[in-house]
Amino acid sequence: MTRTGRPRKANPGEQLAKAMNLFWRKGYFDTSIDDVVAETGANRFGLYARYGGKRGLFDKALQLYRVEVMGRFLAPLAGTDPSLPELQSFFAQFADFIDDPRGHLGCLMCTTASEVSAHDPLIAGRIRAHLADMRRLLRDAAARAMAKGEIAADVDSDETADYLVGAVLGLMSYARSPVPRDQVQGYLRGVLRTLDRLAGRSDR
Amino acid sequence: MTRTGRPRKANPGEQLAKAMNLFWRKGYFDTSIDDVVAETGANRFGLYARYGGKRGLFDKALQLYRVEVMGRFLAPLAGTDPSLPELQSFFAQFADFIDDPRGHLGCLMCTTASEVSAHDPLIAGRIRAHLADMRRLLRDAAARAMAKGEIAADVDSDETADYLVGAVLGLMSYARSPVPRDQVQGYLRGVLRTLDRLAGRSDR
Repeated sequence: MTRTGRPRKANPGEQLAKAMNLFWRKGYFDTSIDDVVAETGANRFGLYARYGGKRGLFDKALQLYRVEVMGRFLAPLAGTDPSLPELQSFFAQFADFIDDPRGHLGCLMCTTASEVSAHDPLIAGRIRAHLADMRRLLRDAAARAMAKGEIAADVDSDETADYLVGAVLGLMSYARSPVPRDQVQGYLRGVLRTLDRLAGRSDR
Repeated sequence: MTRTGRPRKANPGEQLAKAMNLFWRKGYFDTSIDDVVAETGANRFGLYARYGGKRGLFDKALQLYRVEVMGRFLAPLAGTDPSLPELQSFFAQFADFIDDPRGHLGCLMCTTASEVSAHDPLIAGRIRAHLADMRRLLRDAAARAMAKGEIAADVDSDETADYLVGAVLGLMSYARSPVPRDQVQGYLRGVLRTLDRLAGRSDR
């Protein structure tokens, strides 16, 4: 509230963050511009003027999600010289996320990959670029782990990268599905155990 | 075509199968009753009379998918005495699916889990029941594989079941995403390799 008693008007950055959270919760097709107006307090015509409509707004929200949310999750893999410990920290951090209320939302990128890609080449391109970036980070860490002798050198780093990207999609898809959280945690433990097996730390 | 030259009218069963394929392709929220009418040739009022509207039709389409599509995929696990070989056949069969045009659609149940569950308790209940059935089949096969000595007995069969359900969701989510097919095949090979590792057949 300002000193005059009127609610403070959210600035465009705050409005975009609210729109991002709304799309994350409801998905693209079930969210209308009216929903965005109700959620953000933004002016309907202002939204059209700034973003050209729902699709333009969604595209900007997706880019914000990629930087703000996925950027934070991917940070362990984006540092200096990441290898097996960073692959493990990357996955291990999702244990808290799964039990967080936001964990039920899964991942906006993963949901969008399923919901929107087939309908819209622009959005499909964004998803493809995001998955390619994530795959590159996972692949580089796997290749470095081999070079350091942390995982067996006869494991193919491309196949490992494909496996780990699919594991992220599986985790996020499972997290968004209506199942008990301990099942999602069980899946995550299985993925971490697979990393242990790559490292020869478990015979299971 | 009938002998009179008019297109044969699809019966309700055929119309439901067409509606199922439409929902599978486009998802729930982006499919309108008008789309269903255009796709199936059904009478709009007939659809309302029979199903009560889009949600009732979708619910029936989901049940058809569960029996016809998932039922066929799950068949290896639903036979007599399934254990490790059946777990392997269950996953191995998706190699063909991934390269099939339908492979790009992923799984209607998995897409619906992400898209609709949070909005609709009835649909969430259907998804929960389907995932619980699939988990039970996977868990029973894993427990039997342990009893037969095919996989190490110190692996927890519940955690293995959680892992394998998540692996199916990951596979289907990856298959529906706009990435090259060889990456999805790489993920599938990684899952099959994890089963090999459980069986002690690989040190990787």
